[in-house]
Amino acid sequence: MEHKNFKNIDKVTYGRGSFSQLGQTIEPIRQTHNRYFVYIVDQYFKGKDLANRLQNKPEDLVYFIDVDPYEPTTEQVDSLRDEIISKKGVPSGVIGIGGGSIMDIAKALSLMLTNEGSSTLYQGLNLVKKPGIYHLGVPTISGTGAEVSMTAVLTGPEKKLGLKCDWTVFNQVILDPELIASVPRDWWFYTGMDTYIHCIESENGIRNNAFSLAYGEQSLKLCREVYLGDKAGQTSENDDKLMVASLMGGLSLTYSEVGVCHALSYGLSKIHGTRHCYANCVIFQHLGDIYPQGHREFMRMIDKHGISLPQHLSKDWDDATLTAMATVSINLPFMWHHAFGDDWQKKVNLDYIKGLFKRL
Amino acid sequence: MEHKNFKNIDKVTYGRGSFSQLGQTIEPIRQTHNRYFVYIVDQYFKGKDLANRLQNKPEDLVYFIDVDPYEPTTEQVDSLRDEIISKKGVPSGVIGIGGGSIMDIAKALSLMLTNEGSSTLYQGLNLVKKPGIYHLGVPTISGTGAEVSMTAVLTGPEKKLGLKCDWTVFNQVILDPELIASVPRDWWFYTGMDTYIHCIESENGIRNNAFSLAYGEQSLKLCREVYLGDKAGQTSENDDKLMVASLMGGLSLTYSEVGVCHALSYGLSKIHGTRHCYANCVIFQHLGDIYPQGHREFMRMIDKHGISLPQHLSKDWDDATLTAMATVSINLPFMWHHAFGDDWQKKVNLDYIKGLFKRL
Repeated sequence: MEHKNFKNIDKVTYGRGSFSQLGQTIEPIRQTHNRYFVYIVDQYFKGKDLANRLQNKPEDLVYFIDVDPYEPTTEQVDSLRDEIISKKGVPSGVIGIGGGSIMDIAKALSLMLTNEGSSTLYQGLNLVKKPGIYHLGVPTISGTGAEVSMTAVLTGPEKKLGLKCDWTVFNQVILDPELIASVPRDWWFYTGMDTYIHCIESENGIRNNAFSLAYGEQSLKLCREVYLGDKAGQTSENDDKLMVASLMGGLSLTYSEVGVCHALSYGLSKIHGTRHCYANCVIFQHLGDIYPQGHREFMRMIDKHGISLPQHLSKDWDDATLTAMATVSINLPFMWHHAFGDDWQKKVNLDYIKGLFKRL
Repeated sequence: MEHKNFKNIDKVTYGRGSFSQLGQTIEPIRQTHNRYFVYIVDQYFKGKDLANRLQNKPEDLVYFIDVDPYEPTTEQVDSLRDEIISKKGVPSGVIGIGGGSIMDIAKALSLMLTNEGSSTLYQGLNLVKKPGIYHLGVPTISGTGAEVSMTAVLTGPEKKLGLKCDWTVFNQVILDPELIASVPRDWWFYTGMDTYIHCIESENGIRNNAFSLAYGEQSLKLCREVYLGDKAGQTSENDDKLMVASLMGGLSLTYSEVGVCHALSYGLSKIHGTRHCYANCVIFQHLGDIYPQGHREFMRMIDKHGISLPQHLSKDWDDATLTAMATVSINLPFMWHHAFGDDWQKKVNLDYIKGLFKRL
């Protein structure tokens, strides 16, 4: 088996208040390319304090994007790219400030500013033809690992699948735990659980190895402190930890693979538009037989934080809907392979997956 | 306080047997630059199996270097650079295969092949003027963290100090735990303890933060499994872990700082030529008052593996020798500052440091 050659984020700044170093961080890139920057900022921050601290220059383009109605789409990225190019040509770089969706848009945009045609052409592994432009991520929600991963997940007309290559990885990430302090409690939980599930899935499968396991173990330790420990909850100390947990969880899955919950989650999101982290939680509550230990702990965290997840969703899904969902999921064979080994196809087929969806 | 902006290794391959991917890994770099490669290999491997698996091409230069007599010096790197340039001009890249000393030589050489004059000019932080050439590290001993650090430590006529900048960091590292299987037992211990001490020093000081602590905690967990657990010892499972522990320990110190043991260790090595990892062990056994918890555990590991460290070394050192050693150590103010805080100069002076050396 060939071992993955894993591309790191080029540079990482970590610490409370480090967001204020954004301007100085991009200055050398500005000077080298002598062009403007594009900011992609979560609409949530419009009118808020952060919007006055962007350290942008007059020539820069600042887009506030509402990521609430739907997850990032290929169409959205394509039209944003076309608009930017027609307005001011190729920029020096793209800065994404927000949660996982904003990270994905910034990463995809960086690639699509140098690669021609629609982003649907590049959904998959190593289909991108040219390096993208400089891109910098500033997460304001921790958990998805999008700040560290080599994929920019987009929903297209046919599939929900990432633009996945070395060039997708950010050139720079600024991790400022102060920025995640105001995350609403329910999303603080769902996104943190995305990290938790990354680690559980990463370690329970054939691609698990000492490298990904070490990242997963430490990320799980931090998740336990943040969500289960004596000092559990949204405190500044825990925000410090959660930001690191998200990064390490992302590294754990990158060097291993995600599993059943993520495969199902993509199906649920593609067909019903359910947000990724929330979808994971909705699904993971029913996977006690597949991930018994992780499931037990997950249910304790649900309980501790009084989170209520929807039940009996599947009663409204007809067979065609279930088939559509299962079709999306089965088209992620590397996840099933990781989870169940070389024999996975003996167990996993459309009916099996539909059965899992019926648990919801 | 400004937050560090930390440069990562560009790419990392991890796994048993991954060394066999060296040739294919460097092929794109070869093709881009259309030039030869330089191999810097620990002399230990001359005539051994590994020497037949270098995947080098006829045009490449392969140097087997004996790093046993002394730690890497500025003079050594300068003359190697001059010889290489005069033989075949600037290469596509440098490959280092060996322990911490070989890693340091490869990193320094990469920089000195593009920066003029003696490497003594560049000992310190951010003194290097131009990016070095592509450099790839293959550690064959785990522990020093040299595979991940942003410094290439050289001993010069005046100081033992690293060439420290973003460009020092490897472009590529290949972590193949099979390569560390044959490390002699005593060096397996000393180098692993270097990692252990990195983590203890990193977390005990003012630059400790959630990011470096997370790496330190996981590295310590792995060290405990390798050196203290039920399955402690030189097994293949533990080699897998030790290789990750070394990387994570290196990341922990990079994002924080080392402390008293390392400051003393540089003094001991500079004046007496003592090897770094061994010097750390010789010193750390006497630092129970400064790092009580870490010291207790260290002594248990010494005990468990029947390691005997030299005692009463200082009886042979006159005052001039002690002063020379202490002078080297006090010229590492960031380590003392980290360990003792802003007031460190109230406590630490030449006499205090000489007192610490007298414990040896």
